[in-house]
Amino acid sequence: MKAMYEKIKDEKNTKARLGKIHTNYGTFDTPMFMPVGTRATVKGLTKEELKEVKSGFILANTYHLWLRPGSKIIEKAGGLHAFMNYDGPILTDSGGYQVFSLAKNKEKDIVEEGVHFKSHIDGSALLLTPEKSIQIQNELDSDIAMSFDECPPASASYEYLKQSVERTLRWAKRGKAVHSNPKQALFGIVQGGAYKDLRKFSAEETVKLDFDGYSIGGVANDGESKEEMYQAIEYSIPYLPEDKVRYLMGVGEPIDLIEGVIRGVDIFDCVLPTRIARHGHAFTKHGRCNLHNAKWKEDFTPLEEDCDCYTCKNYTKAYLRHLITTKETLGGRLLSIHNIRFLIRLTEEIREAIKTDTLLAYRDSFLAKYKSQK
Amino acid sequence: MKAMYEKIKDEKNTKARLGKIHTNYGTFDTPMFMPVGTRATVKGLTKEELKEVKSGFILANTYHLWLRPGSKIIEKAGGLHAFMNYDGPILTDSGGYQVFSLAKNKEKDIVEEGVHFKSHIDGSALLLTPEKSIQIQNELDSDIAMSFDECPPASASYEYLKQSVERTLRWAKRGKAVHSNPKQALFGIVQGGAYKDLRKFSAEETVKLDFDGYSIGGVANDGESKEEMYQAIEYSIPYLPEDKVRYLMGVGEPIDLIEGVIRGVDIFDCVLPTRIARHGHAFTKHGRCNLHNAKWKEDFTPLEEDCDCYTCKNYTKAYLRHLITTKETLGGRLLSIHNIRFLIRLTEEIREAIKTDTLLAYRDSFLAKYKSQK
Repeated sequence: MKAMYEKIKDEKNTKARLGKIHTNYGTFDTPMFMPVGTRATVKGLTKEELKEVKSGFILANTYHLWLRPGSKIIEKAGGLHAFMNYDGPILTDSGGYQVFSLAKNKEKDIVEEGVHFKSHIDGSALLLTPEKSIQIQNELDSDIAMSFDECPPASASYEYLKQSVERTLRWAKRGKAVHSNPKQALFGIVQGGAYKDLRKFSAEETVKLDFDGYSIGGVANDGESKEEMYQAIEYSIPYLPEDKVRYLMGVGEPIDLIEGVIRGVDIFDCVLPTRIARHGHAFTKHGRCNLHNAKWKEDFTPLEEDCDCYTCKNYTKAYLRHLITTKETLGGRLLSIHNIRFLIRLTEEIREAIKTDTLLAYRDSFLAKYKSQK
Repeated sequence: MKAMYEKIKDEKNTKARLGKIHTNYGTFDTPMFMPVGTRATVKGLTKEELKEVKSGFILANTYHLWLRPGSKIIEKAGGLHAFMNYDGPILTDSGGYQVFSLAKNKEKDIVEEGVHFKSHIDGSALLLTPEKSIQIQNELDSDIAMSFDECPPASASYEYLKQSVERTLRWAKRGKAVHSNPKQALFGIVQGGAYKDLRKFSAEETVKLDFDGYSIGGVANDGESKEEMYQAIEYSIPYLPEDKVRYLMGVGEPIDLIEGVIRGVDIFDCVLPTRIARHGHAFTKHGRCNLHNAKWKEDFTPLEEDCDCYTCKNYTKAYLRHLITTKETLGGRLLSIHNIRFLIRLTEEIREAIKTDTLLAYRDSFLAKYKSQK
């Protein structure tokens, strides 16, 4: 079967929703945070550790897997689940975001057919089209595929964005036409930058194409303010159907998860928890903790006393600091486990607050403790 | 109690011995291979994974832990076991080898008191003495401590080595005099390079000092040939007591484990399995496997069909190659698990061969398959 969303409950005071996604690998609760497994591995975690942090979907990157090892090899392996031996649900992105952000020298030529660009690995000339993106994702055999979209920079003009939104709609239609994996759901993507009318237009027209779920894109580029991100959600959500899941791409700051859910978002993904872990930083309820700091030298307590993750149950800040300052890989790995579990625990608390219609109070108490300081 | 060796059986056709080491963390069979946890972490493995590969002792480096985080901090944490939350036995080296190999610009001044050198981290002037080495190891609270010895290069002259062996004996005596941890065994180290009479002298005089076990040093510097290494063992072993354990430091090539055991060695340690793993190489019964090789691109079989390690039970060479070529840390980690388990499985097979007095036949059949090619 295709991954399918089921709404369970609306929160009384906000647009937040409690729901479930039914997949071939089990049923998972929303709101949900998806760890990112760029190249068929979530950096720092084994599949067993992903289960232990209670991960639902993970995200894998079509662009990276297309280039290495190649989608044909993954298809021969029996698909992405078999290739990486992972028996949980996987969402693949379209490759669009990476083409726009990673292409060598940022040189790219956007034409109606698709995007001509040069590989960031060897500079070879490549063309990614809506059809090609879907074909690759069909071969990867992920549980949810994304439509190929253009991701314009935050600085793009209204005129440019208007044309871009229209082209992304034509691309979405072309991708849907060639989608041929009956076990794979296909999501559409709403673009339109910070413009209310473009978001409305993009959302309404994308919904007319009838996808299995909808994503809000263009909010995690460089340059948007938090206000613009929240507005982009507010401008898009009213036009999305109640019975389909809503996915905010590339967002992983704790407060943004809460604010996103309040505005009606169901799923998030972000590299943030693993990326800051590799730089020695941990999420805590009191803000980010920088393990390089000398004040942890003789602190023999866990990162968070009430955290149920492997790292907090087993290791002290003094030991983590030692691993981080000596650049031992176990350090980044232990912080990755904690940081992913932190965001997943956050979604568990958010779900609890939706059940009891207390999400706004939850946000306020979270903010009262949390400081963005490092 | 102190870690204690118990000999179980001599092999009929060689000097190989089957034995056990009783420790406060359980009893472990010898011959044994010890993974190296340089800075209180075996690179690439958690403590759970160390149990899963059936690791006995692990080795931690006194020099590295003295510099970072400092032995006083580890003492405050409750010792090395508490600091790294590891409930298996730990052996610490004396720091001597690192002082001689890692000191900044290799500048060092060996005097009767000890060795003056500069930290490889910040260039600060340091002095390591036999007393200081033992004091640090007492603070680390390892299960086995090593005497502080000089590790001269393979190119050292007979005259130099003679003086060095005599000084190492005086250092061993001084270290033993200040050793004050009743739960910690203390080992002496036999030096003497490639010279039969120096090895004999060093072994006999060290044994007179009555240590809990004996190590054969000076065989894993750069420059010795395999023949010199095997000779150094043969020159030392006859003078070591039957009822004490024998430890060959820094040796981890599969064939050297077999040849070492044949000559009477009980314990080995080496960074090789984790180091080659990080460079994308795996031990197999047919020689080293280089995962960078394009021939593994579509090989959906495990590294070794009959291997019981986590990596072989879960992942294919195609996936491992993908992780290694894309520099994903999971790759080095999975190969580390396999490589350590490979050497530990080798010791299991060696023990089986000792039981049945077939060690020479085992060596021949191992060599018939194994090629050192990459």
